Amino acid sequence: MKGTFITFEGGEGAGKSTVLERVACKLRDLGYDVLTTREPGGIQIAEAIREVILDTSYTAMDAKTEALLYAAARRQHLVEKVIPALEEGRVVLCDRFIDSSLAYQGYARGIGIDQIYTINQFAIDTCMPSLTLWFKLDPATGLKRIKKNQEREQNRLDLETLTFHEKVNQGYHILAERFSDRIQPIRADLAVEEVTELAFNKVLSHINQ
Amino acid sequence: MKGTFITFEGGEGAGKSTVLERVACKLRDLGYDVLTTREPGGIQIAEAIREVILDTSYTAMDAKTEALLYAAARRQHLVEKVIPALEEGRVVLCDRFIDSSLAYQGYARGIGIDQIYTINQFAIDTCMPSLTLWFKLDPATGLKRIKKNQEREQNRLDLETLTFHEKVNQGYHILAERFSDRIQPIRADLAVEEVTELAFNKVLSHINQ
Repeated sequence: MKGTFITFEGGEGAGKSTVLERVACKLRDLGYDVLTTREPGGIQIAEAIREVILDTSYTAMDAKTEALLYAAARRQHLVEKVIPALEEGRVVLCDRFIDSSLAYQGYARGIGIDQIYTINQFAIDTCMPSLTLWFKLDPATGLKRIKKNQEREQNRLDLETLTFHEKVNQGYHILAERFSDRIQPIRADLAVEEVTELAFNKVLSHINQ
Repeated sequence: MKGTFITFEGGEGAGKSTVLERVACKLRDLGYDVLTTREPGGIQIAEAIREVILDTSYTAMDAKTEALLYAAARRQHLVEKVIPALEEGRVVLCDRFIDSSLAYQGYARGIGIDQIYTINQFAIDTCMPSLTLWFKLDPATGLKRIKKNQEREQNRLDLETLTFHEKVNQGYHILAERFSDRIQPIRADLAVEEVTELAFNKVLSHINQ
């Protein structure tokens, strides 16, 4: 495919969504045709699947059922939105992708990175991102940022989740080592302008390589 | 687990659903505690997933998305209904299971038996049926039976689907060879009483082995 598929990954509060939009703006200023997206991304079928995942009345939802549903939503978002954009030669910046499933469900939830990788490989085929930026941040700092900035997210964050988010962080460390060709760490403890600059440079040199 | 997990498989019109209920009755007459089920089996989450699969407005549904959704519904039905029954020591007779996905989606739809097997192994873990009865019938005969007996199914059956159902049949042949320890063929071209007798004998000797 002619386009470039780049994903942004990391724990909560690492600022990746903000930086993603800023990087997209800077790329557009240079004349690049950029699509920014995140699952389910307005894709009707993926949205319907996400509704099943997030329905809080489904307390009996098994972790593996959930993982299969995430993979299904990923597949449909990829087929309907990402692949057409790549075929048009666009730069696609996607907020979270396979590595989120690997870190959160595979590692932190304990299903196993290899198992989650297997079902996601089925979902993705060969359409892996060629570059993944991993926004590295101490989980406690990330959670503090969220508490400060987004009141509505606060409910999900308690002492238990700090332990969970530390596991997520460990998961990303393992992934960065395993997929060192693809995953590049970005210091996310700096000011947003600096993080944007770091991320933008990585993205630009990747597109031009 | 203490119980026995047995699945009934085959193409359309092979009579497996009718025979399944009759075998269950005969087992109950002998004092066995039998659960008969089929996916999504009244399990709320599995039903919700099935609704997404069957929503006819979702014409853009990718074949792999569908396969992941079937695997997700299978997982939830298994966890909420089949496994608890097996833990109670019951005999579970399930109308269609993994082999339907392998034959229909893996082989007939062309995704690949191995690929569909991989995501279903994730869904099933080690909870495979110990016996699978494959109701063997010439696909044309099966389709004729359905046309005769169930008017509402008639729309889905045309010349194109005969080719498709022949492929499904080929798929089951491949599976019966590959999983010859587990899958036992049953002649389904006989009268329903005779097929029931054949199936019942296989089931009973399996339970008592």
